[in-house]
Amino acid sequence: MMQLTALAAVADLAKTLPQADAKAAEAALARQNSLTKPPGSLGRLEELAVFMASWRGTARPQIARAQAVVFAGNHGICAQGVNPYPQAVTAQMVGNFQAGGAAINQLCRANGAELSVIALDLDRPTADFTTGPAMTEAETLAAMQTGADAVDVTADVLILGEMGIGNSTIAAAMASALFGGEVAGWVGAGTGSDSEGIKRKIAAIETGLARHKGLSAMGVLAALGGREQAAICGAVLAARAARIPVILDGFICTAAASALYAADPALLDHCLVGHQSAEPGHRKLLTALNKRAVLEFDMRLGEGSGAALALGILRAALACHNGMATFGEAGVSEA
Amino acid sequence: MMQLTALAAVADLAKTLPQADAKAAEAALARQNSLTKPPGSLGRLEELAVFMASWRGTARPQIARAQAVVFAGNHGICAQGVNPYPQAVTAQMVGNFQAGGAAINQLCRANGAELSVIALDLDRPTADFTTGPAMTEAETLAAMQTGADAVDVTADVLILGEMGIGNSTIAAAMASALFGGEVAGWVGAGTGSDSEGIKRKIAAIETGLARHKGLSAMGVLAALGGREQAAICGAVLAARAARIPVILDGFICTAAASALYAADPALLDHCLVGHQSAEPGHRKLLTALNKRAVLEFDMRLGEGSGAALALGILRAALACHNGMATFGEAGVSEA
Repeated sequence: MMQLTALAAVADLAKTLPQADAKAAEAALARQNSLTKPPGSLGRLEELAVFMASWRGTARPQIARAQAVVFAGNHGICAQGVNPYPQAVTAQMVGNFQAGGAAINQLCRANGAELSVIALDLDRPTADFTTGPAMTEAETLAAMQTGADAVDVTADVLILGEMGIGNSTIAAAMASALFGGEVAGWVGAGTGSDSEGIKRKIAAIETGLARHKGLSAMGVLAALGGREQAAICGAVLAARAARIPVILDGFICTAAASALYAADPALLDHCLVGHQSAEPGHRKLLTALNKRAVLEFDMRLGEGSGAALALGILRAALACHNGMATFGEAGVSEA
Repeated sequence: MMQLTALAAVADLAKTLPQADAKAAEAALARQNSLTKPPGSLGRLEELAVFMASWRGTARPQIARAQAVVFAGNHGICAQGVNPYPQAVTAQMVGNFQAGGAAINQLCRANGAELSVIALDLDRPTADFTTGPAMTEAETLAAMQTGADAVDVTADVLILGEMGIGNSTIAAAMASALFGGEVAGWVGAGTGSDSEGIKRKIAAIETGLARHKGLSAMGVLAALGGREQAAICGAVLAARAARIPVILDGFICTAAASALYAADPALLDHCLVGHQSAEPGHRKLLTALNKRAVLEFDMRLGEGSGAALALGILRAALACHNGMATFGEAGVSEA
């Protein structure tokens, strides 16, 4: 079990955590080129199969078990009027996840993922980052550890999602602090802010950025992030330790994990991004992370919904990779 | 059972075939707006659910049964050296489909579609369109009827695909004749032509276009098409008669169906395009048809592979639509 003891130690983990297995990737690519199709004609399905091979360390990776975890947290920044929904909705949606009524439940069932939901101290929101750091180092590490401990090391792939009223503001604040640029470029409507709401989001973030300057990547997570963001980082690291590829969800989930990228880009090498959100900051963020999302489907819900949708594509990629006949097996002539 | 008696009668079918059910679509949209998510936040998943509602004529459409059909044909145009694979590969790949070893088999299994493969007179290729019409009207109608008869009217959705060495040349020829523009803009590498092969494809199509001028849309299908193209058109029409939405595959499948669009654009109202192929003509074709593909995944295999991949997305869309709780049911506060 991964033990996280200091934020300053996170950047160094890239040196000790497992790397992609180049031999397994090469063997998977050779298999792809022997299957009954013109080489490369399955496009990104082929890339996904090779990616899975490289992290699972085998030329014929399988998804016997897919785990999905949704982390939920509450945010002091809601005091700044950044979200049109009442903060009670975070706990109400956790109840909806537990009762099976949310989008993520249906998408996990449709694509064969086991879902668990972890509510992180919902009755104790983080501090309002316009007035101080959102979390102490101890709080940040505790939430990261909760995330790391949630990872089932017997799974073959991990889907990550989040829920937290106000957390598109958290995501935009983290992205602004980590990657710079105009704050407005990272801010969108989130769950449905109007133009006045968007102005309040921008103002809150600008105040937060002015208050918290010169931080390390993991310092940004503590000062501007939240518990579900920290838990996502912890889960990404624990999955990496177990060579489990991760499918990140949209803007908020990706922004959370981008603290790790800013600490060391290699820390996200085992992560796919399931979809490119309609939230405008996500495109910018994917550019900053040098990642192309699996899907682009105009979704902007969170909960892990885009990641769970992408799981179906990943399963299809491996079904082709493992199930197709080679030219030799099928007696089909080559070009 | 739909009976096709004359190519000239096809354009008029749009007047008598079923139309989208606006009331069912409206009821489905109302349901989407009551579910526990910000309105519109499932993006194109919501559009797909409403589309399915409009064609199945119910606010809560289901996919109890998904049918996939791959039509295979051989083409006289191969005499012009338009494909690097021997023509025998068409029959060999039909054998591979029947044995379960092709990509389409794995994708149908992964996404729950029942696959059938219909080989259309493979030992009797169509005529070389540089020297005369590919098919007579009687041959065209017979292949269309085979396609129409293949449709299982108890299915909830129909996936269409094709196999036929040389048929990316057929597709480019049909698209050129139906929508105009430079021939080179419709021609790509297909199964893997090099630049000399692409030049031979362009030359063959230019010769064919010069020989066959002033044709009706269905006349283009007969003169420049092939049996699997005609079968696809027949299946699209028979599915429409049964209110079964269709998922077309990539460039070749879409080009086949575009003869119907050119006859009357309304004839493809019940059709989705599963993916946008990496074959460059497909993007142009989708623009001409005013369609946006469900997926864009750099695939260029045919066989119905992109359509079968999109079926998984459609299933996910309906899983959310039918399985999610409303705000009222879940006790979640609205904005």
